[in-house]
Amino acid sequence: MTLAQTANRRKVHLTGSRPDIQVPFAEVDLTNDDPPVRLYDTSGPGGDPEVGLLQLRAHWIHERDDVEEVDAVGPANAGRRVLRARSGKRPTQMHYARQGIVTPEMEFAAIREGLDPEIVREEIATGRAILPNNINHAESEPMLIGERFLVKINANIGTSAVSSSIAEEVDKLTWACKWGADTVMDLSTGKHIHETREGIMRNAPAPIGTVPIYQALEKVNGDPVKLTWDIFEETVIEQAEQGVDYMTVHAGVLLRYIPTTVPRVTGIVSRGGSIMAAWCLAHHEENFLYTNFRELCEIFAQYDVAFSLGDGLRPGSIADANDEPQLAELRTQGELNQIAWEYDVQVMNEGPGHVPMHKIKENMDLQKEWCANAPFYTLGPLTTDIAPGYDHITSAIGAAMIGWYGTAMLCYVTPKEHLGLPNRDDVKAGVIAYKIAAHAADLAKGHPTAQAWDDALSKARFEFRWEDQFNLSLDPDTARAFHDETLPAEPAKTAHFCSMCGPKFCSMKISQDLKAYAEQGMKDKSEEFVKSGAEVYLPVVS
Amino acid sequence: MTLAQTANRRKVHLTGSRPDIQVPFAEVDLTNDDPPVRLYDTSGPGGDPEVGLLQLRAHWIHERDDVEEVDAVGPANAGRRVLRARSGKRPTQMHYARQGIVTPEMEFAAIREGLDPEIVREEIATGRAILPNNINHAESEPMLIGERFLVKINANIGTSAVSSSIAEEVDKLTWACKWGADTVMDLSTGKHIHETREGIMRNAPAPIGTVPIYQALEKVNGDPVKLTWDIFEETVIEQAEQGVDYMTVHAGVLLRYIPTTVPRVTGIVSRGGSIMAAWCLAHHEENFLYTNFRELCEIFAQYDVAFSLGDGLRPGSIADANDEPQLAELRTQGELNQIAWEYDVQVMNEGPGHVPMHKIKENMDLQKEWCANAPFYTLGPLTTDIAPGYDHITSAIGAAMIGWYGTAMLCYVTPKEHLGLPNRDDVKAGVIAYKIAAHAADLAKGHPTAQAWDDALSKARFEFRWEDQFNLSLDPDTARAFHDETLPAEPAKTAHFCSMCGPKFCSMKISQDLKAYAEQGMKDKSEEFVKSGAEVYLPVVS
Repeated sequence: MTLAQTANRRKVHLTGSRPDIQVPFAEVDLTNDDPPVRLYDTSGPGGDPEVGLLQLRAHWIHERDDVEEVDAVGPANAGRRVLRARSGKRPTQMHYARQGIVTPEMEFAAIREGLDPEIVREEIATGRAILPNNINHAESEPMLIGERFLVKINANIGTSAVSSSIAEEVDKLTWACKWGADTVMDLSTGKHIHETREGIMRNAPAPIGTVPIYQALEKVNGDPVKLTWDIFEETVIEQAEQGVDYMTVHAGVLLRYIPTTVPRVTGIVSRGGSIMAAWCLAHHEENFLYTNFRELCEIFAQYDVAFSLGDGLRPGSIADANDEPQLAELRTQGELNQIAWEYDVQVMNEGPGHVPMHKIKENMDLQKEWCANAPFYTLGPLTTDIAPGYDHITSAIGAAMIGWYGTAMLCYVTPKEHLGLPNRDDVKAGVIAYKIAAHAADLAKGHPTAQAWDDALSKARFEFRWEDQFNLSLDPDTARAFHDETLPAEPAKTAHFCSMCGPKFCSMKISQDLKAYAEQGMKDKSEEFVKSGAEVYLPVVS
Repeated sequence: MTLAQTANRRKVHLTGSRPDIQVPFAEVDLTNDDPPVRLYDTSGPGGDPEVGLLQLRAHWIHERDDVEEVDAVGPANAGRRVLRARSGKRPTQMHYARQGIVTPEMEFAAIREGLDPEIVREEIATGRAILPNNINHAESEPMLIGERFLVKINANIGTSAVSSSIAEEVDKLTWACKWGADTVMDLSTGKHIHETREGIMRNAPAPIGTVPIYQALEKVNGDPVKLTWDIFEETVIEQAEQGVDYMTVHAGVLLRYIPTTVPRVTGIVSRGGSIMAAWCLAHHEENFLYTNFRELCEIFAQYDVAFSLGDGLRPGSIADANDEPQLAELRTQGELNQIAWEYDVQVMNEGPGHVPMHKIKENMDLQKEWCANAPFYTLGPLTTDIAPGYDHITSAIGAAMIGWYGTAMLCYVTPKEHLGLPNRDDVKAGVIAYKIAAHAADLAKGHPTAQAWDDALSKARFEFRWEDQFNLSLDPDTARAFHDETLPAEPAKTAHFCSMCGPKFCSMKISQDLKAYAEQGMKDKSEEFVKSGAEVYLPVVS
């Protein structure tokens, strides 16, 4: 549940157990006597992109005394001071949750969800949820990814070799958060990856994810065969020092799985997966992300970076859904989860992709079983391959369903998927489609706060409170513009009909009259009854 | 599965058991050696809107010798000759199916589905499917609505008191059929209802549905209280004589169900339902559509009009889903189905509306049980109320799911739902979203011809056959335009990469290389083996 700010929506803050826990909500004032409606808000505090956002979490991070300011080791960060765990400390939310400690971050996120902070602590402690927030990204507002919480959505942005600029990407980030992105992944490739990410990190009120292998590949001029563990490790540290909150790591693409993809209709469609497959085959060696996984865990634990274990062998077509390579990698993801948890490192599992509706539940069930209920984070899934240009819809169908079945975060797909890079409009279209999917899932899985939003909007609709209906909409601008197209006049905003039926026989109008009629009817009957003695009503006092 | 015609798509016809059965398909030529891909086609033969379409079925209708040309009885059709059943005859497809006869219409529709005509006959005979085709609408191409067949979609068009012209509606009809509408409902209100419908009927290659109560209400100047059975009957005959293929009749809105809607969040949201409720309450009499249902059956049987039993008490919000009035009406629909079948009249049941995902299956299961497997025809359902402006998406999610569970036809919802009348762009957006939902359902329920389309498109994608990918798309225009936005140059249409990753590390390219590598590897191994004696391969001939 997220709402962009507009004229009749105010941002309000709820204060937690201490005055520096100020949790943002969007509050919609209604034109009747009902109390305002309060909705989850991802838009962030706003600010000047040149300056960056306020460091909301700085005090919380420092007061635990488990981190220290040190010179950055990543060459790209030369001369910069960054935070890192003190020797022997693990400044991860999972570590604290396991110690029974509710951090301010956990409390903040619990208030956002309308839930008890103790539930949040327990979900993080068991690995069923993550609270991604790198100690070097103090700008982010804590949020939760886990089955027990509201279904979250991620928006992908990023420059490519073919197009896009840094300012454009920072603008897309702000735009995506305005419309409801809960996290954003920077998938930049090509030049200026480091600088683009810096712009994004300093302006991100949401956790930021990356796929470090993309930047590592740039460092070896795009030849996967030249990749090494050292180059990858350096890239991870560089990004951790910048504040990246979660990183996709394709550690489950094992050498022996690769030949099993040959009979597929669409082979390997994950970029990271295909890069690692090329490396493995060329060297005839096991994936260095797998063989060095414990080293990675040690690095991640020093910054509280969370793993997003990539699904490098996800299906890229309906024909390849739930096949051998996909499921083999999922099992390996489950093994890696256990290792990450040994280091108190938070972890979620990435999932497909392209899956027809009847195979979606199997996917979710296997992930829960093999990955010990770690959060699942899926790309859609797309439920058919036939509609390029509309894959925000083919995938919103699958996303809503898998969200209902238990997926914690849905990675958006824009209308440009398979065809080009998303522009600002595509980012919005993708975010809105996924907010719909996530909210439909929240309703179906019965999140305790979900249905109040639908009820408030439907009540406004039934009572012809047009302005309230617009202001409660996921996208008030579009709702208002569509209404204006047919009935632009201001009186139409308070009219007791709409353009579908016209003034003569609006069903809602008739239905309202019926309600009044029925209520009046009961009143009449009651009065009649009273006049005639009212024996059933009054025997006690008579 | 439907595809608009474009440059690389030819319309082809398959001939049935007799030369006048010519079944249209869209055939897409590929740029590799694979055979052309043949897809279901709803676009119709095309023609001049002033003249109307060819009367494809005229000969089939006459050769059965069960109809006669008579003077129209509807006053609005004065002076016109129309077809009606000969005395004692029932020219309905259900009648013939029950006699064990496969009509040319059934064979035509069977070829469209890629199924045995005998299956079609059996499904119609048992009432599990309908083939709506009024004997006065000889222009229509026979099609099937039933769980065993491809999931169909309906597009609503029609003038309203507030806006729209006849020419505009005929244009919307053609446009909707071009993009894949299987049937179209003319929901005109306001002036010129008769003339608008005439324009639509004569230009419709798809079956046309209406809601006669809308026109009846116009005849009494919009006052539901003044409605009578006689006015309704006259309206039904007028429309049957024009060729309307199926009519929505809200005969299940019983007097005693109306008070149960009072506690609802959104009361009665169906126009027809609210009109009948107003009439019932004002007269304190039972719904005249219910009390005169057998007379209606007799009329419908004379023209082979099918019933679409309206769900006047469908839920208009998540809060009201699967509640008492909705389910009470559904039970009554089931009783009415049995009566229609006594008269060999085809019938389907309309369904909701607004239903959260976890309540959709219950709805479908109850309809199957109570309505004896008659086709279900649902409006969406919308899976959340919070996104006016995007209800084609909120509802495509529910539509795909209920289609998978067994719904035979999905009534589209456009982005303008709840806000205004759909324009041309909205009609297309609604149709495309619903073709996606229907096809996703076809895949999930395993229709034998469904997945070939996805496989062909995905193979084209994997092999970088961009033109084939565009031509196989549900909307080739949009797919091509989106690709052009980032990579407009013509060579990019044959490039082995796309704008998402750029030329350097396209996953599909790496994956193709891997496949070649693996195949070469096997060849090398094989050669090596042969050189070293190849003992396993050659023992028999050695």
